[in-house]
Amino acid sequence: MNDEIGPPVVGMVGAGQLARMTAQAAISLGVEFRVLADTPQDSAAQVCVGAVIGDYRSAEDLLKFAADCDVVTFDHEHVPREHLAALERVVAVRPGGNALRFAQDKLAMRDRLSATGVLAELGVRCPRYRAVSGPAVDALADGRPIVLKATSGGYDGKGVWICDSNEAVAEVVSHGIDLLAEEYIPFDRELAVLVARSPKGQGASYPVAATVQRDGICREVIAPAPGLDPDVAVRAQRLGLALAAELGVTGLLAIELFQVGDELIINELAMRPHNCGHWTIDGAVTSQFEQHLRAVLDLPLGSTGAAAKAAVMVNVLGGGDPDLYSRFVHVMAADPGARVHLYGKRVSPGRKVGHVTVTGTDVEQLRDRAWRAANYLSLGTEESTGEGGR
Amino acid sequence: MNDEIGPPVVGMVGAGQLARMTAQAAISLGVEFRVLADTPQDSAAQVCVGAVIGDYRSAEDLLKFAADCDVVTFDHEHVPREHLAALERVVAVRPGGNALRFAQDKLAMRDRLSATGVLAELGVRCPRYRAVSGPAVDALADGRPIVLKATSGGYDGKGVWICDSNEAVAEVVSHGIDLLAEEYIPFDRELAVLVARSPKGQGASYPVAATVQRDGICREVIAPAPGLDPDVAVRAQRLGLALAAELGVTGLLAIELFQVGDELIINELAMRPHNCGHWTIDGAVTSQFEQHLRAVLDLPLGSTGAAAKAAVMVNVLGGGDPDLYSRFVHVMAADPGARVHLYGKRVSPGRKVGHVTVTGTDVEQLRDRAWRAANYLSLGTEESTGEGGR
Repeated sequence: MNDEIGPPVVGMVGAGQLARMTAQAAISLGVEFRVLADTPQDSAAQVCVGAVIGDYRSAEDLLKFAADCDVVTFDHEHVPREHLAALERVVAVRPGGNALRFAQDKLAMRDRLSATGVLAELGVRCPRYRAVSGPAVDALADGRPIVLKATSGGYDGKGVWICDSNEAVAEVVSHGIDLLAEEYIPFDRELAVLVARSPKGQGASYPVAATVQRDGICREVIAPAPGLDPDVAVRAQRLGLALAAELGVTGLLAIELFQVGDELIINELAMRPHNCGHWTIDGAVTSQFEQHLRAVLDLPLGSTGAAAKAAVMVNVLGGGDPDLYSRFVHVMAADPGARVHLYGKRVSPGRKVGHVTVTGTDVEQLRDRAWRAANYLSLGTEESTGEGGR
Repeated sequence: MNDEIGPPVVGMVGAGQLARMTAQAAISLGVEFRVLADTPQDSAAQVCVGAVIGDYRSAEDLLKFAADCDVVTFDHEHVPREHLAALERVVAVRPGGNALRFAQDKLAMRDRLSATGVLAELGVRCPRYRAVSGPAVDALADGRPIVLKATSGGYDGKGVWICDSNEAVAEVVSHGIDLLAEEYIPFDRELAVLVARSPKGQGASYPVAATVQRDGICREVIAPAPGLDPDVAVRAQRLGLALAAELGVTGLLAIELFQVGDELIINELAMRPHNCGHWTIDGAVTSQFEQHLRAVLDLPLGSTGAAAKAAVMVNVLGGGDPDLYSRFVHVMAADPGARVHLYGKRVSPGRKVGHVTVTGTDVEQLRDRAWRAANYLSLGTEESTGEGGR
C-alpha cells in the first residue's frame, strides 16, 4: 500500500498475456502495477518489476500479495471463491466476489441472468440449459447436438463438448465433473460486446465486434462487426451496460453473443480484459487494458471510440517453429503497417503466443493482411481468410 | 547476451522518460529491454525488470551492463566518447560513436555538415557559426543578438544563451566552458523532422512536425506541421534521410529546423527518441520508440504513417502541486479522449513530468484540448494556446 502522495498500486492475480498488456498500459497511467505469477517465466512476469511468485489457489499467497496493493484484480477467473472473500476483508477487490461468481460458475450465471428482467426488456435470451444430473440430459436436444460445459474452470474451448449422440454425452458425464447442458445454437455469427464499469457506476461500451472461434479458441475479431444493424448493435451495448450494473461488475465485462437473424443469445461472460478487445490497443482511443485499470481504480473512463474505420485482429497460435522472433522479422518486412504483439511465451502448437491487428478502411483487405501475418507467424497451422470467414 | 533461440536483448544507457516509453514499446515486440539507470527511482527503472544501477560516465559500469546485451543504445548523448569506443569493441553500439559524436559536439556537427554536399543540394543551411576564442565573438552579430552554445552537455535550453550585449557575451565566456557562437535566426516557426535508419540502410521519415519551444524547452508539437508547403516538407524529409545516411546514424535521427519563409536552417540534431516525436505513440502507426528499437535491432522499419489527420502534443511541466496523479483524475473526467502519459517523476517546477496527446481533425480544437489538459496537470505554470501559439 502506498501511503505517500502518489499513484496507487494495482495488483493483478495471474501473469498471462492479459496481465502483460495491462502492465504496458499502466506505464502511461503512471500507476504501479504488480502481478502474482506462477513462475518468473510467465508472460507478464517477464515485464513487471517485482513480480510476486505464488499460487492463486493459496489464501496465504493471495493475502501476502494483496498486502502491498491498493486494488486487486484478475487476469483469469480461477481464484477460489472463499479466497476472494478473504481478500475482500483486507483490500479493494475488483471485480468483487459477488460479481466474479457469475464468471466463475456458468450455472450460477445462467440462473442469475434468468432471474433478471434485463434480458426480457432488451429482447435477449440465454440458450435453454439445465444442470446435468444423470439420464435426463438429452431431453433438451430435439434432435440437435447438445452442448455440455464444465460449470467452472474452462477456457479456450477446454471444458466445452458438443455432443451429437447419447454415447458422447455419457462419455463426458463419466468424467464426474459438474456439468451444464445447453441447447446448441446454430448461429449466423458470433458477436462480442465489451463494456467497462467503475465502482462509482460510470459505464462505457466499445463498438460491438464480430468474433470467429475455431475449436473453441478465438481466432479473429473484426470491429466494428461488419454490416451489423445499428439497432442490434445498440441493443448489445445496452445489454453490456445493463448486465454490468445488474451484476455489480467493476472493471471490464465481455459478453460473447450468438447472432441468429436479429436475435441475440448470450453465450459466455468474462470480467477482465478479453481476447475480443485486443483490437482496442491499436484501434481505439483507449485500450481495454487501460480501461480496465481506470475502472478498477474508480477513475473516469476513457473514450471507447474507434481510432480507425475498421480493425481486424487475428490471434497467433503456436506452430511448428519455436523461433517466433525470426518469423516476426519477415512479417515486419512484408507489412510495415501490421501491429504485431508478442506475449513472450514459449511456442507450443495451438497456444496463443501473440496477435496481429491491422486498422484501416477496407475490411476484406485488412483481414487478408492480418491473416497473412498471423499465418506466417504460426507456421504449420496455415489457414486462409476464406476458410476462416465466420 | 541471449544464446538460445529467442529475441535479442537491447540495453539502453540512461533511464529517463525516453527509456521508459521505449520499454513500453519493447513489450509488444517481445524483445528483452534493459536500462542502465542512475537510481532505482529513475523514470524507466521503475518499469524495467532488472534495471542495472550504474554510472554512464564509468567505463567499467558500461562494459558490465553491455555484457548482457546484444545491442546497446542511448536515452541521452552524454556517454564519453572514449567509453563509446570501448563499448564498440565488445557489443553492437547503435548509433555508433562515429555518428553519435555529431549529436554530442555541436562544433563537430557544424563542421561536418558544412563539409557535406547534402545541404547545398537540398538548399538547406546552418546558421553562420564559429568556435569562440576570445574577443572575436561579436564579429558575427551584425547588430542582432548572438547565440552562444556549450559545444556539449546541454539539454532543454541549458547550455544556450542568447546575448544582446558584449557584457552578456563576456559573462558567458567567463565560465570557461567550450562555446560555439552562432548567428541568431529570427525564424517564422520551428519544424522538426524525425527519421529512422537501420544498419542495413533502410530509412523512414515521419511527417514533418511544427514545434514550439519556450525558454529552450519543447512545449508543443503539431503533426503534421499546419499549412506546410508540401515541397518544403519533402525537402525536410529528404534532408533527414540524407543526413542519417551521411552521418551513418543507426536508430532515430531528429533534426530541429528553423523555418524562414521557404528556407530551412538546421538548429540541432539528436540521435535517439525525441520530444518532437512523442505524438507518434498515439498519432502514428508505429511509435518512435518502437521504430528506434526496430532500427537498432536492424529489423525492417514500421510504417511512419499518421493514424489521424492531426495530432497535437503538449508537454506537462511540473507545477505547484506534487500530487500529479490526483490532477490526472480530473483531466480524465474533463476529456476522456486526451491521451496522458506520465513519467513517474517527482514533480519539481519546470521539469518534464509527462505529456498529453490529442488526435483528430481540427488543429485549433486539438490544441485547445491538449493545452487545457496540460495546464491543469501543470498547476502554477498556466499558459494559453493563444500565448503559446508560435
